[in-house]
Amino acid sequence: MNAIKINGERLWQALMELARIGATPRGGNARLALTALDGQARDLVTGWMRDAGLTVRIDRLGNIFGRRVGRNDALAPVMTGSHIDTQPTGGKFDGCYGVMAGLEVMRTLNEHGVTTEAPLELAIWTNEEGARFVPVMMGSGVFAGVFPEATALTATDDAGKSVAGELAAIGYAGTAPVGHKVGAYFEAHIEQGPILEAEEKVIGVVTGSLGLRWYDVTVTGMEAHAGPTPMPLRRDALYGASFLFQEVTSIANDFAPDGRGTVGVVNVHPSSRNVIPGRVRFSVDLRHLDGGQLDRMEARLRQACTALARGRTTGTALAVEVEAVQRFEPTPFAPELVAHIRQAAAARGYAHCDIVTGAGHDAVYLARVAPTAMIFVPCKDGISHNESEDARPEHLEAGANVLLAAMLAQAQG
Amino acid sequence: MNAIKINGERLWQALMELARIGATPRGGNARLALTALDGQARDLVTGWMRDAGLTVRIDRLGNIFGRRVGRNDALAPVMTGSHIDTQPTGGKFDGCYGVMAGLEVMRTLNEHGVTTEAPLELAIWTNEEGARFVPVMMGSGVFAGVFPEATALTATDDAGKSVAGELAAIGYAGTAPVGHKVGAYFEAHIEQGPILEAEEKVIGVVTGSLGLRWYDVTVTGMEAHAGPTPMPLRRDALYGASFLFQEVTSIANDFAPDGRGTVGVVNVHPSSRNVIPGRVRFSVDLRHLDGGQLDRMEARLRQACTALARGRTTGTALAVEVEAVQRFEPTPFAPELVAHIRQAAAARGYAHCDIVTGAGHDAVYLARVAPTAMIFVPCKDGISHNESEDARPEHLEAGANVLLAAMLAQAQG
Repeated sequence: MNAIKINGERLWQALMELARIGATPRGGNARLALTALDGQARDLVTGWMRDAGLTVRIDRLGNIFGRRVGRNDALAPVMTGSHIDTQPTGGKFDGCYGVMAGLEVMRTLNEHGVTTEAPLELAIWTNEEGARFVPVMMGSGVFAGVFPEATALTATDDAGKSVAGELAAIGYAGTAPVGHKVGAYFEAHIEQGPILEAEEKVIGVVTGSLGLRWYDVTVTGMEAHAGPTPMPLRRDALYGASFLFQEVTSIANDFAPDGRGTVGVVNVHPSSRNVIPGRVRFSVDLRHLDGGQLDRMEARLRQACTALARGRTTGTALAVEVEAVQRFEPTPFAPELVAHIRQAAAARGYAHCDIVTGAGHDAVYLARVAPTAMIFVPCKDGISHNESEDARPEHLEAGANVLLAAMLAQAQG
Repeated sequence: MNAIKINGERLWQALMELARIGATPRGGNARLALTALDGQARDLVTGWMRDAGLTVRIDRLGNIFGRRVGRNDALAPVMTGSHIDTQPTGGKFDGCYGVMAGLEVMRTLNEHGVTTEAPLELAIWTNEEGARFVPVMMGSGVFAGVFPEATALTATDDAGKSVAGELAAIGYAGTAPVGHKVGAYFEAHIEQGPILEAEEKVIGVVTGSLGLRWYDVTVTGMEAHAGPTPMPLRRDALYGASFLFQEVTSIANDFAPDGRGTVGVVNVHPSSRNVIPGRVRFSVDLRHLDGGQLDRMEARLRQACTALARGRTTGTALAVEVEAVQRFEPTPFAPELVAHIRQAAAARGYAHCDIVTGAGHDAVYLARVAPTAMIFVPCKDGISHNESEDARPEHLEAGANVLLAAMLAQAQG
């Protein structure tokens, strides 16, 4: 089986042809979910699926499944897939790579006349990006039972158009119920981060998805005129908050390598050049692969807030309020699938390393209903969700070869 | 002479009567420059001036001068004054106190039949607040030659109405040229800061006005997704900028007691909860009484920016740009006038201390054309430019007694 290799040139051509639909002048893609352009892209790819002998089935949310029959067709399918909708100024690879890699696996198996024990399926999930309709990762979320079908179908865009209406308009309001048994799920994806490039690896063996906790922190001091108020009498909310900004980074550093800590939004009140800030409200994003570690990271944040409030940090007491906004639990991927990916990369001699995903993917929802794992390949400068998103053909080819081998290992069983 | 005292009750009543014009439900004043309410307040106070035997003269910018004749009326007048316009949610004391204290000095001299050697003048300056028309401190600015009369007269409010038109509309477009010789200028004012209250002083002997330098600093790193980007590979502009926020405070602390350092405005780009900030732009406000010290404070700021840019602060190089936005030079007040104020406070047994003004006042412009000094009295919690602005009658009385003594010391000559 190790002798079978995918056709990197064909994979690249498929990606480039798909990227013509909704191409932007700067080399990116604007193909928002359930627009006419999304419809064109679905038509193109389902045509390719049928040409590859797959049986195409569309569910009520427009999720597309191309099925390749197995020797024991009663087995739950080994599935791969991703999405082909994009951000408004998105790139050519995010999502599309996972679908085209899966298609290339099917084409390669056809060429070599391979029939697997379990059936295979290639999935295209509706509205992964969430740029036009929320919730984000809509199709896979309903598939995995994370939120109800009705929530998704009644979601509207800024113009008031509904998912249900737009699915019908592009001809993808299917009849199949949403959700069916999946034996295993693999997803190939560009990394959307800088690690593989920095470490000169070709394959990222994704061991799981980081848990996430979001907070809003409000530091309140005393607003006062910047001129007449001497330093010892100030209660400067920004000066106080700056120690928390740094602590968020310190916490993440202390929980290396899987810890992340980010302050992304800062609002200063009253935001006047000559007024000492009386109130600062900012976001905190903490992530880790391990729920226990995430608990400890949160405890550190709360300790730092208490220390600041009591005046132990700056010598000046301030009011500090921490509000928990959202949380996702960490999702470890299925060890046996992860092992298939690691072995496939090693067998083919690709430089590889274990990695975690900090971004959301359809695979993170699929992991709730099936053994799941992901394969990452490097993207240029770690940039994604951007028209300048780029990836090297040989890396994309390597990722698809690993996907092929991992699916075969799982489905031949 | 030390036996003469002003009438604190009469001073308080005058302040309260003036405060009825434009009174707000929360106990403040909304009496913007050159509105009908400002016109009513001018009518009230010029009526009181005339009742006190003052000759009222109005210049082309609507500055009002009430003159009390001297034995040697050819001498340049010893002037006092302030303003009676307010912020949109201003208080009863900012500006008004200086004018009412000056009026009370005139009334007291009349009661005691005192004629001074030099003539005295009571000034009401047009549009000190700058809340409706800019430039701020408009009347005194033109009087002192800081900017041209035409700039002031053609300034318009948000509705497009001009200073010239609004002066005419309220009947205060005078005919006197703007600017005349002033022998000395005193201004009594609430402190608008917390020092006197904190130090339990009644009189602040104002030795000068802080110089001010404003900068915009831009720190540029690399915008990236908060999930997939591990800590060592980040170029977080906010994390970097937070060290500069702290350094601004450290610099001011190191130049105590007259140093001030404030970051009042912070804009984070792209300001998304799950994106590492790629760019942070923030304001820096540095102040000191001494120009040389201010130079050294600026040098410290620039050193800190260079250190951050070169990666010496966080281990990560960032782009840091410093743009100088505005500067006012420090204004030391006239030592002989300051000495009169200090002696008057001491002679009457008022707890007093030297202090500087960090806020702008008409006196700061007058200091460019005449020997000038200011008298501060405490205000509650240091709060000003706010409807809750408050001051104690006995402090206001003390300040007016010091003003009386200082003006007599100067004008008796």
